[in-house]
Amino acid sequence: MSVTAARGFTASGVSAGIKDSGAPDLALVVNRGPSHAAAAVFTSNRVQAAPVRWSRRVIGDGALAAVVLNSGGANACTGPAGEDDARAMAEHTARALRVEAEQVAVCSTGLIGVRLPMDRVTAGIDTAAAELSEDGGEPAAIAIKTTDSVHKTAVASGSGAGSGPGPGPGWTVGGMAKGAGMLAPGLATMLVVLTTDADVSPPSLDTVLRQAVRTTFDRVDSDGCMSTNDTVLLLASGASGVRPEPAEFAQAVHDVCLDLALRLVADAEGASKEIEVRVVGAASEQDAVTVGRSIARNNLLKCALHGEDPNWGRVLSAIGTTSAVFDPDRLDVSINGVRVCRDGAAGESRDKVDLSGRAVTVTVDLRSGDASATIWTNDLTAAYVHENSAYSS
Amino acid sequence: MSVTAARGFTASGVSAGIKDSGAPDLALVVNRGPSHAAAAVFTSNRVQAAPVRWSRRVIGDGALAAVVLNSGGANACTGPAGEDDARAMAEHTARALRVEAEQVAVCSTGLIGVRLPMDRVTAGIDTAAAELSEDGGEPAAIAIKTTDSVHKTAVASGSGAGSGPGPGPGWTVGGMAKGAGMLAPGLATMLVVLTTDADVSPPSLDTVLRQAVRTTFDRVDSDGCMSTNDTVLLLASGASGVRPEPAEFAQAVHDVCLDLALRLVADAEGASKEIEVRVVGAASEQDAVTVGRSIARNNLLKCALHGEDPNWGRVLSAIGTTSAVFDPDRLDVSINGVRVCRDGAAGESRDKVDLSGRAVTVTVDLRSGDASATIWTNDLTAAYVHENSAYSS
Repeated sequence: MSVTAARGFTASGVSAGIKDSGAPDLALVVNRGPSHAAAAVFTSNRVQAAPVRWSRRVIGDGALAAVVLNSGGANACTGPAGEDDARAMAEHTARALRVEAEQVAVCSTGLIGVRLPMDRVTAGIDTAAAELSEDGGEPAAIAIKTTDSVHKTAVASGSGAGSGPGPGPGWTVGGMAKGAGMLAPGLATMLVVLTTDADVSPPSLDTVLRQAVRTTFDRVDSDGCMSTNDTVLLLASGASGVRPEPAEFAQAVHDVCLDLALRLVADAEGASKEIEVRVVGAASEQDAVTVGRSIARNNLLKCALHGEDPNWGRVLSAIGTTSAVFDPDRLDVSINGVRVCRDGAAGESRDKVDLSGRAVTVTVDLRSGDASATIWTNDLTAAYVHENSAYSS
Repeated sequence: MSVTAARGFTASGVSAGIKDSGAPDLALVVNRGPSHAAAAVFTSNRVQAAPVRWSRRVIGDGALAAVVLNSGGANACTGPAGEDDARAMAEHTARALRVEAEQVAVCSTGLIGVRLPMDRVTAGIDTAAAELSEDGGEPAAIAIKTTDSVHKTAVASGSGAGSGPGPGPGWTVGGMAKGAGMLAPGLATMLVVLTTDADVSPPSLDTVLRQAVRTTFDRVDSDGCMSTNDTVLLLASGASGVRPEPAEFAQAVHDVCLDLALRLVADAEGASKEIEVRVVGAASEQDAVTVGRSIARNNLLKCALHGEDPNWGRVLSAIGTTSAVFDPDRLDVSINGVRVCRDGAAGESRDKVDLSGRAVTVTVDLRSGDASATIWTNDLTAAYVHENSAYSS
């Protein structure tokens, strides 16, 4: 279902020959309306790929008619020629769909620093345009994979509640994502396209998307490496005719984002553990996030958890590098429910901790307030090293 | 030679039985005077081990008569009992040497969260005190090893130039260090003791040591993991009778620190490359350091270099996560002398880059000013993961 679960959308995914393997590598998502409201969140990396620069510009008016996406090449760090290529992708897609180029967002993923084979890309766009259908959500999700082992989709439904002339049965939010927990992929790019047939204005979409991304995709932090190409798009067709109740719509978008984010973590091929770092008792949410990230990025801890060693000393070391509010002598750490560290020193026996499963929860109580946050990450494994050192250039 | 290269110092290293293996694990360094000037730099981690808290307190008056060091246990996150243990180590050493406890610094390294076997520690201190000698520098350097594959010492000599009644032949700065590039050791603690027979006041020692550490040990950044126990001590006996020319003395301390720091990087057992990240053309030294650290901590790049892939896209990605002054379209990156990225896009062929050796130099030109900095790191390997996941708890 994916991006075509919501009414008003068609999609397709084809093999354009960008990848040497011949695997699918080009996707289209088209919003048939009646509304073309859209919102986007892009990488905060200051080195931004040409497609990100293009899409950032065209989303300015809060409207998109289509998205063209390719795997097999990031079109990042490709200079002015790469800028021309991104624009050409939008223009060619616009001609094929009889829309304006400024209504087309572009997303690319793959190796940095290499030009795209534009003749194959444009031919692929023509093929993809001819194959657009309401069943195209799955092929589109498959075509944007790089090192992903599975394609990732999610759907949430909303009630008919709200206002508007909608025929029922309510509205839908659907989405697709590529990226593999940032641990697995060679270049860590995360591309996400969300669609909805709810009738929502661009400013509302923007608010809802930013809030959802902030507590989902932004808190998946497998290796702290931020891509030049990360993009999350939300397109609203209004085809349900329903203007949803705002809180319910925000929850649905959040749920789809969280579902997709956890699929990214779960697909970290090089990883053997999915680690949830819960920070509670923080003086502020920012403190909780900072502490959670510091723990999630600590290579020594990630190795220890890989070795099924509940090494809480490495958790405390990671906390200590932050400027969050805490007293080192009042820190508590639980691993999979066992409070192995109490008041900054040894607590219950680490022998009680069962780390044999894939799911690991590290809970830190800073005992300095009521704020909390969760960061999701993976362990650090020899397979991660292998995958990222053997990635062909 | 190590810490006993300079006149006025004795040292020893013994097996106290703290380590189950029976390997040497306790060292003493004693300053016989006539001066007892000292300076210290400690970890900036806010979770600080008991010995760091003790030593930070006693260095306050700028004087030390001795240092007691143990491997086999960090005495970190051990609560009030651990504080008592650190004090007891100082007190027992003081009694054995007939000095005050407040003249004794304490350093510990090993697993966090476990109490030291104090009966063995105190018996070991007695043995070590009985074995103190002017040839004890090597045994002391050996006794502070944890996962280090080799012990690390360095010496620099100064001329008789300067002032004072010194008998010649000039003065000496010597030192020992443990820690293995932060990549190899389980807990990454770096302990360094420097000695000199130059006659230097505590305030001058402090200034010289801070300046030297700032551009040497502080710029070895293998995995961004900061220990709870890191300590660098500089003790001056004045036994040469020479008050050195300040710039020459500062240079000698810097040289010994750099020599030891590079030995730490070179001893990263889990690593196959020593990587020098040189950032030039920065608007400020702080910018250069920030960019250098971001590159040095990028797991994806460290894996790529392990795989001998000159993946400059990952360098640009790392630069882009910083707030340093630069224009993404004017970045240059050279790897082992080949400018693979020019103006933020592909430059010379990456096929020209020879990454077969252990030494790798990544040079980034931000083209935004005249400041520069160098960070030293290692590659990320399956052996690193193995060593840090198999580390016994």
